[in-house]
Amino acid sequence: MDRLTRQLEFAAEAGRLKAVQRQTMLTDPPRRENSAEHSWHLTLMALALAEYAPPGTDIGKVVSMLALHDLVEVDAGDLFVYAGEADQRRQRAAERAAADRIFALLPPDQAVRFRGLWDEFEERASAEARFARAIDRLQPMLENSKAGGGTWHEHGIRADQVMAKVALIEDGSAELGGYARRLVERAVRDGTLAPAPAGP
Amino acid sequence: MDRLTRQLEFAAEAGRLKAVQRQTMLTDPPRRENSAEHSWHLTLMALALAEYAPPGTDIGKVVSMLALHDLVEVDAGDLFVYAGEADQRRQRAAERAAADRIFALLPPDQAVRFRGLWDEFEERASAEARFARAIDRLQPMLENSKAGGGTWHEHGIRADQVMAKVALIEDGSAELGGYARRLVERAVRDGTLAPAPAGP
Repeated sequence: MDRLTRQLEFAAEAGRLKAVQRQTMLTDPPRRENSAEHSWHLTLMALALAEYAPPGTDIGKVVSMLALHDLVEVDAGDLFVYAGEADQRRQRAAERAAADRIFALLPPDQAVRFRGLWDEFEERASAEARFARAIDRLQPMLENSKAGGGTWHEHGIRADQVMAKVALIEDGSAELGGYARRLVERAVRDGTLAPAPAGP
Repeated sequence: MDRLTRQLEFAAEAGRLKAVQRQTMLTDPPRRENSAEHSWHLTLMALALAEYAPPGTDIGKVVSMLALHDLVEVDAGDLFVYAGEADQRRQRAAERAAADRIFALLPPDQAVRFRGLWDEFEERASAEARFARAIDRLQPMLENSKAGGGTWHEHGIRADQVMAKVALIEDGSAELGGYARRLVERAVRDGTLAPAPAGP
């Protein structure tokens, strides 16, 4: 197969992400979000929120990472962000196997480069990866907040569980982390998110 | 409204692109593509096909343009690429009005910058814009080819009409234009695209 044919096969295989459903419920009309449109929304958010990344962050690289970050779900599907540890371990193994297969559809030089971006994102190994991960965590909170609770209600998620994810946002961007923290506090006050259980 | 709030309002409004349906039929499962997942697919293709842009093309800028290029469809909807001239004129006016409204949701400095990228894309005013437009024209051809004709069949589109769009791909990338030309010729041979009417 020639180089362009391989690249187009990769692009066609990637297109299957449009059929991967996420937990996030969209409003108007209400339906589950798919991983392709989710990835697009993140790239757009990264462009609009670029100024909240640490100085020197390469936003072009952030956007590339976000365009690629969910490709593994073509094979592995999407796992709910609040899934248990055993499920998360299984998911990580499935995603690594998917990365091995999917990036290898590309010509070898590109396969190495794209896989490198995916690994960097997964390992939060750079300011770019941490900012991209922050955007990836923030977007579903915004959707849940807009939907009056969304998957928080559906799965009985409490504020302490959401706050644990806010830490990852703060790690990528102090400002976006602060915003997410206030969003969670407001959701608890509004009754759209259950409070943390009382201490002993 | 503070700056971050405006940016997040913009991102939320942009999210409505997930509800805008395009003509393109996806396979597996068969349904119309929406403009958000379409935009994502184009950003991914731009990354995978970057080497076919003219030397010196800024692919980060291409990807930013592609992430933004369909935002106006939140108000204006998607128009079939083979629509008549009157419809196309009306659509352009509706898209400009939409750009005026939607980019103005952002803080003024960003509104100017994002609108500038959109204008550049529309006017094909740079190598980046012409490459982005080439990708935007190529992707539906790949989907139609994969779907055994897709919207070509549905709307009785002939090879001469598709070839007129190939010219725009060639203008952005000689290699991708050549590929598109061969794809059209193959589709005619396969019977998935009607040939041009015989000359006089």
